[in-house]
Amino acid sequence: MKTKILTGDRATGALHLGHYIGSLKSRVELQQQYDQTILIADLQGLTDNGHNPKKVSENILNVMADYLAVGIDPEITTICLQSAIPALSELTMYYSNIVTVSRLERNPTVKSEIKNKKFGESIPAGFLTYPISQAADITAFKANLVPVGDDQLPMIEQTNEIVRKFNSIVGEDILVECKALLSSVSRLPSVDGKTKMSKTLGNAITLGSSSKEITSAVKKMFTDPNHLRIEDPGQIEGNVVFTYLDAFHPDKAQVKGLKEHYQRGGLGDGQVKKILDICLQDLLEPIRTKRKELIDDRQYLIDVLKAGTEKANQEAEETLKTVKASLGLNIWTDR
Amino acid sequence: MKTKILTGDRATGALHLGHYIGSLKSRVELQQQYDQTILIADLQGLTDNGHNPKKVSENILNVMADYLAVGIDPEITTICLQSAIPALSELTMYYSNIVTVSRLERNPTVKSEIKNKKFGESIPAGFLTYPISQAADITAFKANLVPVGDDQLPMIEQTNEIVRKFNSIVGEDILVECKALLSSVSRLPSVDGKTKMSKTLGNAITLGSSSKEITSAVKKMFTDPNHLRIEDPGQIEGNVVFTYLDAFHPDKAQVKGLKEHYQRGGLGDGQVKKILDICLQDLLEPIRTKRKELIDDRQYLIDVLKAGTEKANQEAEETLKTVKASLGLNIWTDR
Repeated sequence: MKTKILTGDRATGALHLGHYIGSLKSRVELQQQYDQTILIADLQGLTDNGHNPKKVSENILNVMADYLAVGIDPEITTICLQSAIPALSELTMYYSNIVTVSRLERNPTVKSEIKNKKFGESIPAGFLTYPISQAADITAFKANLVPVGDDQLPMIEQTNEIVRKFNSIVGEDILVECKALLSSVSRLPSVDGKTKMSKTLGNAITLGSSSKEITSAVKKMFTDPNHLRIEDPGQIEGNVVFTYLDAFHPDKAQVKGLKEHYQRGGLGDGQVKKILDICLQDLLEPIRTKRKELIDDRQYLIDVLKAGTEKANQEAEETLKTVKASLGLNIWTDR
Repeated sequence: MKTKILTGDRATGALHLGHYIGSLKSRVELQQQYDQTILIADLQGLTDNGHNPKKVSENILNVMADYLAVGIDPEITTICLQSAIPALSELTMYYSNIVTVSRLERNPTVKSEIKNKKFGESIPAGFLTYPISQAADITAFKANLVPVGDDQLPMIEQTNEIVRKFNSIVGEDILVECKALLSSVSRLPSVDGKTKMSKTLGNAITLGSSSKEITSAVKKMFTDPNHLRIEDPGQIEGNVVFTYLDAFHPDKAQVKGLKEHYQRGGLGDGQVKKILDICLQDLLEPIRTKRKELIDDRQYLIDVLKAGTEKANQEAEETLKTVKASLGLNIWTDR
C-alpha cells in the first residue's frame, strides 16, 4: 500500500504562479509515488467568506481546471470537493468536543491569520474552529503525509493532538497521526515585491493569464530601485525578477551567469525582464491552452470532480463508520 | 399542512418525572395536533461529554424506550437520531461562518450553562458552538414551533438571527423562522428540594423506577422542616411533596383539601407522602411495564428509531439541498 498524501486549496480564486511553484508542480511529481488526494476546500474557503459565498462556489471549477491543466492526473490522483463529503462535517462535530476554545485561540497559525484578516471583534465561529475541520479532512483520508509551508506546522500539531486524544478516549488506535511534508520552496513574492503572491490581493499572475497580461506583469515587476544606469552594478536580493528566474527558468547555469553580469554592471533590467517574459510565456502557454479547453468543457470538469468525490466519499465514510463505532454510535450498522 | 414542531432530549440518561411533566406529557397531546419531530440529541449530548461518549451512546435506546412507554406514537411522531442525520452537521458548518465567536460568548443560556458546568478554561469548542448546531436542527426540519422553557429563549433568538442573516446573504427566504412554544410548567424540584430534578445529579425518579424506589424516594422527600408535630400548622411553599401532588395528582380538589388541612395543622407528613406514593405508583406502573417490554425488545426499538431517522433524513436532505443551491454549491445535483 502506497503512503497516503492529502493536500488541497481553498476555492477562493483561480490559482497562480505561487501555487504552481509552491505546490502544484510537486503534486504532479508526488502523484507517481504516493496515493494522493487533493481536496478542493470550499467549506474552508467559506470560513472567512460567509457573507460572500459566490466567491467560493464560483471558483470551484476554476481550481479544478487549474489542477488538470498543470498535469494532475485524475486517473491516479483523487480530486474531490469538500462540501460534497458529509463525513468531513460529521467528523468535525465529534472532534469539536475534545478541543477547547482556548486551545484554538492559542493556535499560532489561526492567531496570525485572524490578525491579518482584520476581523476585529467579529471572528466567525467557523474560522476559529477551522483547524478542527482540517483535522477531519486529514484523518478522514488517513493521510500519512501533508505537504505544508512551515507557517502551517501548528495545524499539523493540532491535528495530531486530536488524533491522540480521540484514540486515548476510545482506547483504540482509530485515527492515524500524520507528518508534515515541508515544502522546500519559499513563498513567491507578488509582482510589486511588497507581499507574498496572493489570489486575494490581485497581485498575482494566474495560470490562465494571457500572453499580454504576463508581459505587462513582468514589465511592472519590482527590481533594484538603485539600479539607475545599465552600467551600474545591480542588486539581486529582493529583486523580484531574479526571484522568478530562480523559481521558473529551466537553465540554472544561465540564471547564475545573468546574476553575476547584473551584479557587476552592464545588464539592464529590460533585458533580464525579456528573458523572464520568454520563460514564463513558455511555461504558461500550454497550461493556458489546456485550461481554456477544460473551462469550455464544464461538464467534463464536473464529471471528473464527481468521480473523484465519490471515491473520496467511500474512504471518508469508512473512517466515519469506525469513529462512530468506537463511540458506541453504531446503533444500526448501515447508517 | 400541519404546523411543524421540533423537540428532543440530550441522550445523557434515562428520562425522569421532571421530563414527564415538563415535556413528555404534552408531546403525547401535541402529536395529535401538530406534525411533531422528536430528536434524540446524541451529538448535543456529546458536547459536554466528549471524554465519556458511552454515557451518551448507551442512553439512546433508554430515551427511545421512555418515549414509547409514555405514549409517544411513532406512527404519528417522527422520532429520529441526530448523529444519523448528516445534513445536521453539514448545515452547522455553513451557519458557523455567519455567527461570530463573541455573539456565542454573549448567549445568556450558554453563558450560564458554562458557569454551571464548571468548565473553567476548558470549554469544549463544540459546547460553545452548540447553539449553531441547534439552529441546524430547527431549520433542517423547517420547524415553526419549538417547545422550550423560558431559560431557553435566547437559543430561539440565536436561531432566528441565523435564519435572517442567511436569507439576507443569499437574497431568498430559504430558511424558516421559528417561534417558542413556552412551557407552562415550571421545572420540577429534585427529591431533596435543593435543585431542579436532573438526570445528571442522581436526585430524580426515573420513568423506569421500581415500586420500591418510588416509595423510598417519596419517603426521603423534603417537606416543611419546621412541621415537627402532626397537630402543628405546616407550610406548603417549598414543600416538595405538595409540589409533586400539584404536578401529578389527578384530583385537584382533593389536593386543595389536603393543602388546607396541612396548613391548619393535623395532617402528618407521612400521610401526605402515602397519598403521593399511591399517585406516583399509579402513574408509573403502566409506564414501567411498557418500558420493560420495550427494553427487552432492543431490535424493535432500533427498527422504530431507524424508520423515523430515515424519514427525518429525507426532510433534512431536502433543506440542505436548497441551502447548498442558494450558496451555489449544487455543482452536481444528485450529490
